[in-house]
Amino acid sequence: MENEKDLNERDLAKEAEEKSALSEEEILSQEETAEAEPETDELSEAREKIASLESQVEESESKLLRVQADFENYKRRARMDAESAQKYRAQNLISEILPALDNFDRALKVEASDEQTKSILQGMEMVHRQLVQALKSEGVEEIETVGKTFDPHLHQAVMQGEEEGFEPNTVIEEFQKGYKLKDRVIRPSMVKVSQ
Amino acid sequence: MENEKDLNERDLAKEAEEKSALSEEEILSQEETAEAEPETDELSEAREKIASLESQVEESESKLLRVQADFENYKRRARMDAESAQKYRAQNLISEILPALDNFDRALKVEASDEQTKSILQGMEMVHRQLVQALKSEGVEEIETVGKTFDPHLHQAVMQGEEEGFEPNTVIEEFQKGYKLKDRVIRPSMVKVSQ
Repeated sequence: MENEKDLNERDLAKEAEEKSALSEEEILSQEETAEAEPETDELSEAREKIASLESQVEESESKLLRVQADFENYKRRARMDAESAQKYRAQNLISEILPALDNFDRALKVEASDEQTKSILQGMEMVHRQLVQALKSEGVEEIETVGKTFDPHLHQAVMQGEEEGFEPNTVIEEFQKGYKLKDRVIRPSMVKVSQ
Repeated sequence: MENEKDLNERDLAKEAEEKSALSEEEILSQEETAEAEPETDELSEAREKIASLESQVEESESKLLRVQADFENYKRRARMDAESAQKYRAQNLISEILPALDNFDRALKVEASDEQTKSILQGMEMVHRQLVQALKSEGVEEIETVGKTFDPHLHQAVMQGEEEGFEPNTVIEEFQKGYKLKDRVIRPSMVKVSQ
């Protein structure tokens, strides 16, 4: 083709015109140049292919990174959820048991008038201690009250009053025990607070 | 995401066809133009590049599929673990409470000799019922014993004996209550079994 061009010198100008016209066309349409020069076309096709594959690689690698990041986040969250579920696992049962424990506390306040009553109460006190111990081993704690500064997170004030020897805003009486499970308040204690 | 993948796969297949069509031309054109064309080097480099990129795409896509599959497996396992942890969440506290409940059962067997004792026992029976109810609401059940066929999963035989009116291998007496938490035996009951 090069030789042909050299031989046909007369047509050079014309060809140059055509070529420059073609170049403009090239910009517009690669398909037309494809017919004119098959080798170049293969190369440019290959380059397009490379570009497309490179963006595919990039895409699937960034997708992989995203999925891996999601996976890690999910694992971390699942671990935290499992820890929290483990930490407070007995909360439901504890909440169910507290009313029984309240009644137990009240029932033990009876003054024993004879030996049999005294012996029964002693047995019941042992059962009560065992029950409280079982709850303690799961992380249940009584909330401290009398003498402590009133804390609305721990104490529910149901009465106010004056009491000698107590600072203002101090718990002076406990009506019902409150409980925490580890760092979580299961039920605040019901108290009387000094003014 | 699945659709995207399907589309990509379809594109890949189409591209593969185009490529193999091209390859036939390539074989012919390479023979004809091998020495004439300086692009051949570039082109063969480009082809190597394409092959390497294609294997990269394949590799990172199969890696993506593996990670996605791992992720799904992990999610499923985490869900199952969470369900199981949730189902038996109170098991530890229940196991701690059972000895207290045993003593409670024993303490309530006293024969009341006077009014005060009777009244105290009534109060304690109420507390006991509340406690049993709290455990029940968490899924705790007493294991049935007397009259049931002996089942080594549920019953621990500590004695054997004869008893009129009982089939062989039947529980004839209960020494200590056993408990299940949902479908899991927390403690088998201690029983006497007929020979």
